[in-house]
Amino acid sequence: MPYDPDNIFAKMLRGEIPCNKLYEDDDTLVFLDIMPRSDGHTLIITKEQAESLFEASPGGLAKLMAVVQTLAPKIRDAVGADGVLIAQFNGAAAGQTVFHLHVHIIPRKEGEPLRPEGAQRADQTVLAATAEKIRAKLAGD
Amino acid sequence: MPYDPDNIFAKMLRGEIPCNKLYEDDDTLVFLDIMPRSDGHTLIITKEQAESLFEASPGGLAKLMAVVQTLAPKIRDAVGADGVLIAQFNGAAAGQTVFHLHVHIIPRKEGEPLRPEGAQRADQTVLAATAEKIRAKLAGD
Repeated sequence: MPYDPDNIFAKMLRGEIPCNKLYEDDDTLVFLDIMPRSDGHTLIITKEQAESLFEASPGGLAKLMAVVQTLAPKIRDAVGADGVLIAQFNGAAAGQTVFHLHVHIIPRKEGEPLRPEGAQRADQTVLAATAEKIRAKLAGD
Repeated sequence: MPYDPDNIFAKMLRGEIPCNKLYEDDDTLVFLDIMPRSDGHTLIITKEQAESLFEASPGGLAKLMAVVQTLAPKIRDAVGADGVLIAQFNGAAAGQTVFHLHVHIIPRKEGEPLRPEGAQRADQTVLAATAEKIRAKLAGD
């Protein structure tokens, strides 16, 4: 399947649709998942036109993962979580729904089960408050 | 929690306990998960003494992910899967059970649910056959 430049993440990268942005640099954009499996569920996307892990350049993937590594513990701390699940889906059979390479940072709290995948869109007021909390943590470090 | 040099993956790296090895280089060791969530469920571990993503060196993480990127589509094809789930757990609250940084490559087939995590140890004869199939694919490319 060729890369579709009209996928929802490509539109976010072009600023055509909004997102709860947490961070951006030359290679990546980071924002909250609108259907969070836990508080602070974050997506890190590449700025390359890569459908999945398989199409990314090795350098682009390294940059993406460096951002994941830097942000994950700060996001965990910002939302008071105890651990972090990193997940990344390649292909519809693996649960991929947006065909633009993205990595999930999912904070986990002791004894708190994950919400089902893609089950419920969060209230934008709640998302905005979470985003603000995480941005403050990122700015403070 | 400090790194425990007697964790099961550290023992595999030192050759003190066996594994169904698929690949090894200066920075990584790759082998089949003994409790596979799907056929071909593979673990990629760093040779650094890193408990989780947070303790890895950025260079070590880049090397780890480069191996994930190279091997994942070949493992998918070797077992006839359609997609690949990449997962990585940090902290007990996130489901981490061995405290040595490792990335899961979990091949996914259309319509085939994942087996529960850590539910059942696979028969070694079955694992050995799967490992042989994957090693043949890796050697052939």
